[in-house]
Amino acid sequence: MLMSIATNYYWQKLEKFCSDVLEKAGVPKRNAEIVANSLIEADLRGVDSHGVVRTAIYLERMEKGMINPDADICMVNENDSVVLVDGNNNFGSVIGSQSLTIALDKAKKSGIGLVGVKGSNHFGTGAYYAKKAIAEDMILLVLSNASQTMPPTGGIRPFIGTNPLAVGVPAGNQNPFILDMATSVVARGKIIVEAQKGNSIPAGWAIDKDGKPTTDANEALVGSVLPLGGPKGYGISMFIDILAGVLTGAGFGRYVHNMYENWQDPQNVGHIFLAIDINRFMPIDYFKDRMDQYINEIKAEPKAPGVEEIFIPGEIEARRTIERKENGILLPRKVAEELDEIGKRYGIKLSDAAFDTNSVMEVNYDIQ
Amino acid sequence: MLMSIATNYYWQKLEKFCSDVLEKAGVPKRNAEIVANSLIEADLRGVDSHGVVRTAIYLERMEKGMINPDADICMVNENDSVVLVDGNNNFGSVIGSQSLTIALDKAKKSGIGLVGVKGSNHFGTGAYYAKKAIAEDMILLVLSNASQTMPPTGGIRPFIGTNPLAVGVPAGNQNPFILDMATSVVARGKIIVEAQKGNSIPAGWAIDKDGKPTTDANEALVGSVLPLGGPKGYGISMFIDILAGVLTGAGFGRYVHNMYENWQDPQNVGHIFLAIDINRFMPIDYFKDRMDQYINEIKAEPKAPGVEEIFIPGEIEARRTIERKENGILLPRKVAEELDEIGKRYGIKLSDAAFDTNSVMEVNYDIQ
Repeated sequence: MLMSIATNYYWQKLEKFCSDVLEKAGVPKRNAEIVANSLIEADLRGVDSHGVVRTAIYLERMEKGMINPDADICMVNENDSVVLVDGNNNFGSVIGSQSLTIALDKAKKSGIGLVGVKGSNHFGTGAYYAKKAIAEDMILLVLSNASQTMPPTGGIRPFIGTNPLAVGVPAGNQNPFILDMATSVVARGKIIVEAQKGNSIPAGWAIDKDGKPTTDANEALVGSVLPLGGPKGYGISMFIDILAGVLTGAGFGRYVHNMYENWQDPQNVGHIFLAIDINRFMPIDYFKDRMDQYINEIKAEPKAPGVEEIFIPGEIEARRTIERKENGILLPRKVAEELDEIGKRYGIKLSDAAFDTNSVMEVNYDIQ
Repeated sequence: MLMSIATNYYWQKLEKFCSDVLEKAGVPKRNAEIVANSLIEADLRGVDSHGVVRTAIYLERMEKGMINPDADICMVNENDSVVLVDGNNNFGSVIGSQSLTIALDKAKKSGIGLVGVKGSNHFGTGAYYAKKAIAEDMILLVLSNASQTMPPTGGIRPFIGTNPLAVGVPAGNQNPFILDMATSVVARGKIIVEAQKGNSIPAGWAIDKDGKPTTDANEALVGSVLPLGGPKGYGISMFIDILAGVLTGAGFGRYVHNMYENWQDPQNVGHIFLAIDINRFMPIDYFKDRMDQYINEIKAEPKAPGVEEIFIPGEIEARRTIERKENGILLPRKVAEELDEIGKRYGIKLSDAAFDTNSVMEVNYDIQ
């Protein structure tokens, strides 16, 4: 069956589509642009789970009063290097972007900037902020807590989130180092995909609802995804929850509310932005030379059988960004349809963002 | 066969033994006490691999001019929140302790203290410093790089160290949160133990010298131990190397020299000490209440079959410390013999540190 909708989109037009929709829905223009930009950056890097697929849930939460697009973002107890930010339930990426700017300013002033954030929402990918810090020759560490998905070691049901950490470090001629990872063994999304295909999953990914190890993808989905490396991932995830949640005054554990399931409370996510000015330690050019040397030496290591190249964190995503800027962002049909519907509600045409407008009527989804 | 040496030691006397030996060997008294204290604290917590077993190698490196016990520890480019410390090749735990003090002072002054360290040596356990920060109601993050033991993802031979991270966070009535972990799947020591027993090892722990997965403990020992969770552990370990090594001017990758194998160069290990003053975010008592609530809620979670208790990081080690303070530190015969030899060289009697002097002549090692 032929559908009258494209699946391949030109990134800048798709970004504008999302931004326009958000603006029409009531988000101030500058903030709409930030949210759209953070989603598109994720798609460009190939982290589709955090891309424009989130437009619908972000909008729905705002429409139902669960996100306040007009909220003032406030600073509490500020000095030259530390501040607490209260996001007052604005969009996570708006709060995150402002917190990043503050952290970078403080690092320029005092060598380090620590921004703790409470009252926030899902803030997209940590890599989004890492990339911006790198553009200013800064090192950035970003932590965020998240709603419950993983058990503590020895537990049987979700208690902590797959609390992500991201790090950005500039290099010279090499790609910058961008690590952006959840503290789970795998993303829950991967288990969903295996369940849909009727596949089993490797041992160690998840436990069933009784806390027993399972290789059944469906049992895993009603159970819990496991922390990276057992007690070590549990410890790292808990540490992130403590810094981003307990310390900032945001939610922690069960008090970080699920974006998809809880429609009574704001999420109250917490974040940490820690920026370091490299110049305090050595001239930036010398540091970049050292980074290049480090990366070159790793990439020149002998490779295991079947391995074509040794990558550093963020390198594959950097290449994918170039590729997607050239060839377009391919969306699953379901996502394109959902965006199309949203666009119709707000009078914005998704088809204007199609990569090759000639192909709009011709894409046959059955061959995907 | 009965040996004339005890294996159970009273912690304070064993600490004094180590300190006295170091002092006789030429370490200034205050520094000898610090090194001995850091070793005993590891033994008390049950981290025997980092306890008094290291006395011999620390001494040997110093005796051979690879560690300078008289070196001045210098500060470079200091401000209220950031400083670079050059350890000038003193003992790692001496440099570490001084760097911790500086980080805590800065955190008290400006809310955060970041100390980057170069020119250091093996600094014991990160938990040692975390515990001291907790005693001052501070949050501490400690990173250190280490000599090469793990391949990058896709590589076949050691390139990065099992670069450890440690975190300390105070709580109220509950035990403090102390996470102290290497970024490898398991300690190399565990593989040595399995090899000695003639056991195989679980898949995923290590690769052989050709980069192929192996369950043969002996092949693993001539191969590489693997990073925690594959590319994620590789990324975290690399991030630690970048901060502790590339940024500080210390060694990184192959330029962090192996303590046991390289007798030409100082190790040039690098560390990061990051202290956060909780009071900048909320009153310390309120924070401790939140920590207690968090820990209580985790510990009250339903447990998997066969699990008696859910632990938080550092809790088992806290209990073991109480137990070992009461019942003594049990050393492997080989370690006791080695310490005894060292004591004889410097005219210090190990037997004075035995837990129950009546049992000195009676311990039968064959039943251990």
